[in-house]
Amino acid sequence: MFVYPMPTILAGALVDGRPNFTTLGNHGLMRVKPPTTYISICNGHYTTRGILEHGTFSVNYPSVNQMAIADRCGLVSGRDTDKSAWFDVFFGELETVPMISECPVNLECRVIETVPLGHMTVFIGEITDVHIDEDVQGEAGRPTSYARMDRLDPLIYCPGNAYHRLGDRVGQGFHEGRTDSV
Amino acid sequence: MFVYPMPTILAGALVDGRPNFTTLGNHGLMRVKPPTTYISICNGHYTTRGILEHGTFSVNYPSVNQMAIADRCGLVSGRDTDKSAWFDVFFGELETVPMISECPVNLECRVIETVPLGHMTVFIGEITDVHIDEDVQGEAGRPTSYARMDRLDPLIYCPGNAYHRLGDRVGQGFHEGRTDSV
Repeated sequence: MFVYPMPTILAGALVDGRPNFTTLGNHGLMRVKPPTTYISICNGHYTTRGILEHGTFSVNYPSVNQMAIADRCGLVSGRDTDKSAWFDVFFGELETVPMISECPVNLECRVIETVPLGHMTVFIGEITDVHIDEDVQGEAGRPTSYARMDRLDPLIYCPGNAYHRLGDRVGQGFHEGRTDSV
Repeated sequence: MFVYPMPTILAGALVDGRPNFTTLGNHGLMRVKPPTTYISICNGHYTTRGILEHGTFSVNYPSVNQMAIADRCGLVSGRDTDKSAWFDVFFGELETVPMISECPVNLECRVIETVPLGHMTVFIGEITDVHIDEDVQGEAGRPTSYARMDRLDPLIYCPGNAYHRLGDRVGQGFHEGRTDSV
C-alpha cells in the first residue's frame, strides 16, 4: 500500500431494504464544483449490491474515538450481521442513503460514473448534501470548509496497517509558496 | 471542500519535452492488486497536456519541510516557469515519468482509464514502480508498507484551507474491532 495518508470512512447503502455500512480507505476528492468524490469497493461486498441497485451511497467520517467500531465494520459482512443496529441511522434528502449520526460529517452521494476495475468498482458520486454536527462547525452559519479539524479528530489510515490521528496545523494553502522562503 | 483528510502531492509529467509538476490534493487509492491510484486535474492545466500525450504520470509525496515549495508548485504554471529547475529530477523505468528526488516516496503510473468530469479529468493509473528513500524504510528489505510514517512526515491538506502534519499512531488496522470493546 503505497498511497498515503488515506481517510478512514464508513460507506453506507441500503441493501435489501436495510442500511448497511462498510469500512473503506479508498476515498478522495475529484472535483470541487460540483462537489464530486469516489469510493472504490470490492464487487463481492454486500454494500456494493445496494449501491448498484439504488445508484446512491453515503460517506461517514468516524473520529478517532470511534476507531474500534469503525474497524469492526470492515471485519464483519452485512450478509451475516445487521450492522445498522450498531449505529443511530438517519436519512436526509435521498431515501436510499443511510447515514450514521455518531459520525460528525456525512455526505449524501449520487453515482454519476461507474468505473469497473477488475474485482473492484469505482463509484464516482456527486455530493448532493452534507451534514455536519453543529459542535464541529467553526463560526455560526459558516460552511463545512470552516469545520474545526481538532474537534473532527479524523481517523487516518497509513502504510504499516496503522491508524493515526491528524497532527498540528502547519500552514495555509495557496499561501506558503508566496513567501520568499522558496 | 467536504472530503478530508487529503494528501498533498506533486503530480509530474513530461510536457513539451520538459518535466513539469503541479500540486494536487485529488489523489487516493483505488485498488491494492494491481496497485491502482488516481489523480484528478483541470483540463486546462499545463501538466494535463503531458499526461494526455504520454499516458503516464508520477506522484511525488512532499514532507512537511517541503511545504513552501510544494505550495508554490500549485501557484505557478509550467507555461510561464520552468519548475523542473526547482527540483532534482530523476527518471525510472518509464522515460516519460519525471520524479522529484527530494520527495521521499515517488510512484510511476501508467494511465489505464481516463474519466472526463466536466472541466476536470480523472486519470486512473496503475502504479508500475515505487521509489522509496532508504532512510524512510523500516527494516532492511521490507517493502513500503513498512515505511516509517514519522520520517515521511507527510503534508496533509484539510478543510479550512490548512496544511497539517500527521499525528500519532493510535491503533492497528483490521485489529481494533476484534476486541470486546465494541
